[in-house]
Amino acid sequence: MVIFVDMDEVIADTYGAHIEIYNKQFSENLTLELCNGNEVWRMVPPERQQSVRDHARNRGFFRNLKPIKNAQVVLRKLNEKHEVYIASAAMQFPNSLEEKSDWLDEHLSFIPWQNRILCGHKHILLGDVLIDDRSYNLEKFDGRTLLFTSPHNIRTTGFERANNWLEVADKLL
Amino acid sequence: MVIFVDMDEVIADTYGAHIEIYNKQFSENLTLELCNGNEVWRMVPPERQQSVRDHARNRGFFRNLKPIKNAQVVLRKLNEKHEVYIASAAMQFPNSLEEKSDWLDEHLSFIPWQNRILCGHKHILLGDVLIDDRSYNLEKFDGRTLLFTSPHNIRTTGFERANNWLEVADKLL
Repeated sequence: MVIFVDMDEVIADTYGAHIEIYNKQFSENLTLELCNGNEVWRMVPPERQQSVRDHARNRGFFRNLKPIKNAQVVLRKLNEKHEVYIASAAMQFPNSLEEKSDWLDEHLSFIPWQNRILCGHKHILLGDVLIDDRSYNLEKFDGRTLLFTSPHNIRTTGFERANNWLEVADKLL
Repeated sequence: MVIFVDMDEVIADTYGAHIEIYNKQFSENLTLELCNGNEVWRMVPPERQQSVRDHARNRGFFRNLKPIKNAQVVLRKLNEKHEVYIASAAMQFPNSLEEKSDWLDEHLSFIPWQNRILCGHKHILLGDVLIDDRSYNLEKFDGRTLLFTSPHNIRTTGFERANNWLEVADKLL
């Protein structure tokens, strides 16, 4: 089975990093719980929204993301049983490309370069499963889709959902 | 029609750059014609082969490649008629990733980030046509394949071939 796995908010904690950077910069106390159901940048005052949206353009942002809980251990097992590819819509942020490659070298070194994809549209991927936090990626994928739960998508309906990596293991191992 | 187009030796002149850098470094007169039928690094004395193979790891190598003749004008027309994606097996060289994005911004700015793919294996691409200079990429692609002629592949048989971009235009426009 060929399985494609998104990076941001599925294996790398982008959302948490946005909150951490925002809280530090503005001495605030935003939390994941407060953000539930929303994009993080919508949860800050209008005059600070662009600052949050620009985090992703800062050098180092993607390189320093924390892995999502249990992603590494479950992906290692998935990779023994299936053909696993990491597929990130990273081309939007050219500064992220090498950082994402380095991040994978550090945190998921068992996924070789041949199985890493930095792309835009994901409907050009040919395989069996796509795990992603964005419904617009899942909608057009020709295969089984798993919506990985992230604060911004908790109100999204109509997709098979994995709330965490242990649930992914239950479904695919 | 969804068309995937490789970068190195199809739209960007990697082979010519290898020869240019080698000739400059060693004061030699290697030419494309002398290399016909071979990988460029095989055409230099054994003690210099690693130096040539390492070109691709040097910062700036991919950013400064010249476009292949007529690639831009034909791709612009193809892009008006079809869904064109650039697909480069760039993950092998992390230093190349941002350079390739910048190169596309300069030379093929009409291909948006959503239609750019930096990957490894290409058999995970879902579409109608793959234009590539490497037979191992074409062999596993599920669709029509065009072997784009490069000095290293002129002896390869068994594939529909495009010798240049005007031939691609004849076939796909």
